[in-house]
Amino acid sequence: MKIGILTSGGDCPGLNAVIRGIVLKGTTSYDLEFVGIRDGWRGVVEGDFVPLTRHEVKGLSKVGGTILGTSRTNPYEGDRGGAENIAKTLFGHRIDGIVAIGGEGTLAAADRLSKDGIKVVGVPKTIDNDLRATDYSFGFDTAVNIATEAMDRLRTTGDSHQRCMVAEVMGRHVGWIALHAGMAAGAHAILIPENPMSLDEITALVQSAHDRGRAPLVVVSEGFKLKGMEEAFSDKGLDAFNRPRLGGISEILAPEIERITGIETRSTVLGHIQRGGSPSAFDRVLATRLGLHAADAIVDEAWGEMVALRGTDIVRVPFSDALGELNTVPQYRYDEAAALFG
Amino acid sequence: MKIGILTSGGDCPGLNAVIRGIVLKGTTSYDLEFVGIRDGWRGVVEGDFVPLTRHEVKGLSKVGGTILGTSRTNPYEGDRGGAENIAKTLFGHRIDGIVAIGGEGTLAAADRLSKDGIKVVGVPKTIDNDLRATDYSFGFDTAVNIATEAMDRLRTTGDSHQRCMVAEVMGRHVGWIALHAGMAAGAHAILIPENPMSLDEITALVQSAHDRGRAPLVVVSEGFKLKGMEEAFSDKGLDAFNRPRLGGISEILAPEIERITGIETRSTVLGHIQRGGSPSAFDRVLATRLGLHAADAIVDEAWGEMVALRGTDIVRVPFSDALGELNTVPQYRYDEAAALFG
Amino acid sequence: MKIGILTSGGDCPGLNAVIRGIVLKGTTSYDLEFVGIRDGWRGVVEGDFVPLTRHEVKGLSKVGGTILGTSRTNPYEGDRGGAENIAKTLFGHRIDGIVAIGGEGTLAAADRLSKDGIKVVGVPKTIDNDLRATDYSFGFDTAVNIATEAMDRLRTTGDSHQRCMVAEVMGRHVGWIALHAGMAAGAHAILIPENPMSLDEITALVQSAHDRGRAPLVVVSEGFKLKGMEEAFSDKGLDAFNRPRLGGISEILAPEIERITGIETRSTVLGHIQRGGSPSAFDRVLATRLGLHAADAIVDEAWGEMVALRGTDIVRVPFSDALGELNTVPQYRYDEAAALFG
Amino acid sequence: MKIGILTSGGDCPGLNAVIRGIVLKGTTSYDLEFVGIRDGWRGVVEGDFVPLTRHEVKGLSKVGGTILGTSRTNPYEGDRGGAENIAKTLFGHRIDGIVAIGGEGTLAAADRLSKDGIKVVGVPKTIDNDLRATDYSFGFDTAVNIATEAMDRLRTTGDSHQRCMVAEVMGRHVGWIALHAGMAAGAHAILIPENPMSLDEITALVQSAHDRGRAPLVVVSEGFKLKGMEEAFSDKGLDAFNRPRLGGISEILAPEIERITGIETRSTVLGHIQRGGSPSAFDRVLATRLGLHAADAIVDEAWGEMVALRGTDIVRVPFSDALGELNTVPQYRYDEAAALFG
Repeated sequence: MKIGILTSGGDCPGLNAVIRGIVLKGTTSYDLEFVGIRDGWRGVVEGDFVPLTRHEVKGLSKVGGTILGTSRTNPYEGDRGGAENIAKTLFGHRIDGIVAIGGEGTLAAADRLSKDGIKVVGVPKTIDNDLRATDYSFGFDTAVNIATEAMDRLRTTGDSHQRCMVAEVMGRHVGWIALHAGMAAGAHAILIPENPMSLDEITALVQSAHDRGRAPLVVVSEGFKLKGMEEAFSDKGLDAFNRPRLGGISEILAPEIERITGIETRSTVLGHIQRGGSPSAFDRVLATRLGLHAADAIVDEAWGEMVALRGTDIVRVPFSDALGELNTVPQYRYDEAAALFG
Repeated sequence: MKIGILTSGGDCPGLNAVIRGIVLKGTTSYDLEFVGIRDGWRGVVEGDFVPLTRHEVKGLSKVGGTILGTSRTNPYEGDRGGAENIAKTLFGHRIDGIVAIGGEGTLAAADRLSKDGIKVVGVPKTIDNDLRATDYSFGFDTAVNIATEAMDRLRTTGDSHQRCMVAEVMGRHVGWIALHAGMAAGAHAILIPENPMSLDEITALVQSAHDRGRAPLVVVSEGFKLKGMEEAFSDKGLDAFNRPRLGGISEILAPEIERITGIETRSTVLGHIQRGGSPSAFDRVLATRLGLHAADAIVDEAWGEMVALRGTDIVRVPFSDALGELNTVPQYRYDEAAALFG
Repeated sequence: MKIGILTSGGDCPGLNAVIRGIVLKGTTSYDLEFVGIRDGWRGVVEGDFVPLTRHEVKGLSKVGGTILGTSRTNPYEGDRGGAENIAKTLFGHRIDGIVAIGGEGTLAAADRLSKDGIKVVGVPKTIDNDLRATDYSFGFDTAVNIATEAMDRLRTTGDSHQRCMVAEVMGRHVGWIALHAGMAAGAHAILIPENPMSLDEITALVQSAHDRGRAPLVVVSEGFKLKGMEEAFSDKGLDAFNRPRLGGISEILAPEIERITGIETRSTVLGHIQRGGSPSAFDRVLATRLGLHAADAIVDEAWGEMVALRGTDIVRVPFSDALGELNTVPQYRYDEAAALFG
Repeated sequence: MKIGILTSGGDCPGLNAVIRGIVLKGTTSYDLEFVGIRDGWRGVVEGDFVPLTRHEVKGLSKVGGTILGTSRTNPYEGDRGGAENIAKTLFGHRIDGIVAIGGEGTLAAADRLSKDGIKVVGVPKTIDNDLRATDYSFGFDTAVNIATEAMDRLRTTGDSHQRCMVAEVMGRHVGWIALHAGMAAGAHAILIPENPMSLDEITALVQSAHDRGRAPLVVVSEGFKLKGMEEAFSDKGLDAFNRPRLGGISEILAPEIERITGIETRSTVLGHIQRGGSPSAFDRVLATRLGLHAADAIVDEAWGEMVALRGTDIVRVPFSDALGELNTVPQYRYDEAAALFG
């Protein structure tokens, strides 16, 4: 069997380790043949393939990013898109099936293609940890480590200047990175999309930490919304060029916290450094194992399924299990963390 | 209620985060009072206590080691040991119960004391990840990260000199650190106590990696035993002073690998650097959560139980669940990893 | 002799190591006595002192920030400011002299106080490396390491998405951090205050890297100015609240680069993470040595002088040597680096 | 002109950055052509060359080790060695000159070849920092950082167990790594080859730290010798197989310290992890600059000279300046550090 591998959506530490795991297991245990698909679904649609043997995956477990490139192309769009065209393209290159490594959009497309007869195995990828059906996804641990280390650094500046420091981390729809990094770094307030708060509630936490002699440390997910924020801030989401603001919610919060509490406050948007670079050991192991099991899934012809972490085991679940609702932070996990800054 | 907290056995990154979690949750949510017990069971037996309030645990989530000190004292030994004496000592200091943070020996003692009427809640601690009843224990992830980073470094030296590099990691009875660090670093052979191998089997893996143009990278648990090693090496376990050898199994393996394959081979014993220093974010979160839930367990009077990780949740299990057999690497996990170097 | 120590201006990794060096050398070799002055010159003016013995400096070589706190207070301002008042305050607390650890503003004040009869020894502190009379200042190496590691991470994202990544680093008036981090990370363009460039020149470098198949990596000092920028951007330096923009020059550059080249471009402002946290080994050694030599300078009554690094030696120079012109990046150093991205 | 580049002796973080610097400057500024010489002088003697263009050096500034390989071959030995044979080999491949990147042995050979008419430019390489004529050499800063971080980790274990921890670092003949890492990590004793001490002197320092309530931290260069050690230990330098002991001086010291002071003592030999992996930013900048200036030196036909760091500048010196005496730690630098543990 000849299998194409693609990575799709935002890059994530561990993508290369997945690719390596699939190729090593597939070639040494099963005699599978692989090709790399360039830039996610774009490469499928346009028939853009590169060789992918044991040689190409050498030493990749620690390398960040993806050697295959990635894009946000939708395989059902464009002249050459759609299941029928894709089936022809794959047939023309004698490719029997695809491993699609990606997040919700990718897996939704994979699910639809699968139902339209394309043979696809999935590997979940989300740095925000927002996919259901897997306990954790690779990249998340690396992002939490980077955010935690950054907050450790911010704390010393806060302490020296008696300032409140606000760190903005990734998480458009879910607050996992903020929850874990905030807990790890000992934040005095954790602000996540699942739990909107008012400025009064936030500044009460800041003031309380300050009153105990601490330099308040606040972590906020990029997707956090102030209670009633739509009204208060909706007209201010544009930058000086009338383009969507590059800055984030932390840049709105910091001056408000300073205004209300009188405590000097500074914000830092961690941004892209959270998703690049060498994966943590946890993510390398998780990604490698997902790759190994994806090779098994191919041989078992488990099309329409994706591999996932449950406890300490890698299992298979239908694509649909990962789709629909996001994996949000449940209330009891938030309350657990909130006990630390109450 | 007034509760004593102790840490026992080898130090482990995350101990301070557990202590902080217990004290913060216990004082802010429950009105518990705490004292620190110095140097594990020694402090219980000798009545050596220190104040432990919110102030003492400030900023501890990221601090390695244990502020309470640790020892390997057995609470049933010595003049003032035994359940009856300990009960008197605790009563004399108006201490109602104990949180014991420790490994198998500690938990076995806690189990026995508990059966003898002392109120004890447990928190599992093992850097080797050798305890059953918890998916992972804090400290393990940090150790794997350190070992992985060290092996990343060894690889560049191996590549530059076309050498075989042997890294010896912790793991007296179980091979989890070697398994995970080996998988993360892309080792060409992973040698663990659960899977004795002969020199021929090992050198075959080394030679195979060499023949593919790679500088062979071998990771070995300190507790790994060569098949038939008792005979071959038993008289050689002493150093030049006739004391038990400080060096490890890697120092036996390296010259043998070089002798048999002709490939220049160097060994490095990572040793104590694997257990010190600031915990990884994963370990800080796990340790903090275990601490928070230990405070809950006290309030629920769940004496005789310990908190543990299952999937993404913290649960309670009786001490006995963690005792007896060790949490060894199962064959299917070893085979999974072996597919990478086959 | 009783000496007060103060840290002034922005915090910087290594401040605590300087304090420790002074106190250890002063107490063990010379029998000096020390007090800590809180929050820079504010503590001098207001007579805010704390004990500072060997005990307080224990373990400080690796601790970021400053245990003494810092501020931007000018000692010549306010009711209780000015040399005469300060002399009285110091006399009242039997303080014979001051070690002032700070940047240009601090050293200028120290110089003036010194000329007005206050006994002051200086230690240069600038994370931007903008002080003359010292080869390097502590904190700079740590900042360059953090910026370099961040850019290593950004590169993998750039490579995976074929994007241009723009990293904004510290450096209001001088480009040393950008120069060193850019060279270390292999940037394709280094934009510094000393060398204004036009958008055309910048996009030519970006396009050239792109044409060679690379994902362009650009590093820019916060103080970089586009040629003719005053005209083009002066009315756009405000955020959506009409406050000075929190975002930086990179947020202006990124959309312009994308517009002109058509290459997707993202910016990241590293911000405060560059100045916090544990110092690098280089900075710990430099800071410790400056502290040791500051103690010598006190005993030698070298008032009006500061300690500084020259080659591998610590020397003494008059305050005035560090003042006046900034230590800018000379043209030959910029040209040297530019050879890499030409 | 066509120039061969070789790396010789032990690997060192920054070798690849030097190679990249030479090739980028040489090809973009000067139209030089390069070939890589495999495995140091072996490749010269055996005529083992590989292509070396801009393509091969892409992204190398952060990559540890050397892409050219290295060995300890002496170019004057063997059938095909010697200046005359080498001249023929180079002529046969139309190679006009050589850049030799290496330590004392390499530079001595380069000096001799240069005097015998071969065109050679040198770049000093020593992780131990034992070469004269350059303020620092690349690799040293990385090694010091790794050793410092390891000692930070050892300290938490020492504190938790009230143990004395002994860290053995590189440095066969000179103590620079021990001096800098010991200063950075706050060691209570620094033992270097330049300053032999007796067990009594060492244990006095250990005892003194212990008496002040500290867990003693000792750093020792691998080449440290106890006063009178030749007599006491000379017959014990062999391991259980009668081969030269793999373990180091720290394994001799630790049990002696424990025996004399009664303080539990553990040793760790950091070994090869000090020389592998990605270079620090300082080393990347230094190595890159040395490479850039080596390209200049070629064009200037500065044969028989090497590039070196002096203050913040790169200068040229004759080979002979780096040979002869080693760059040892001068007494005043040792005394400076000793003030911290006195």
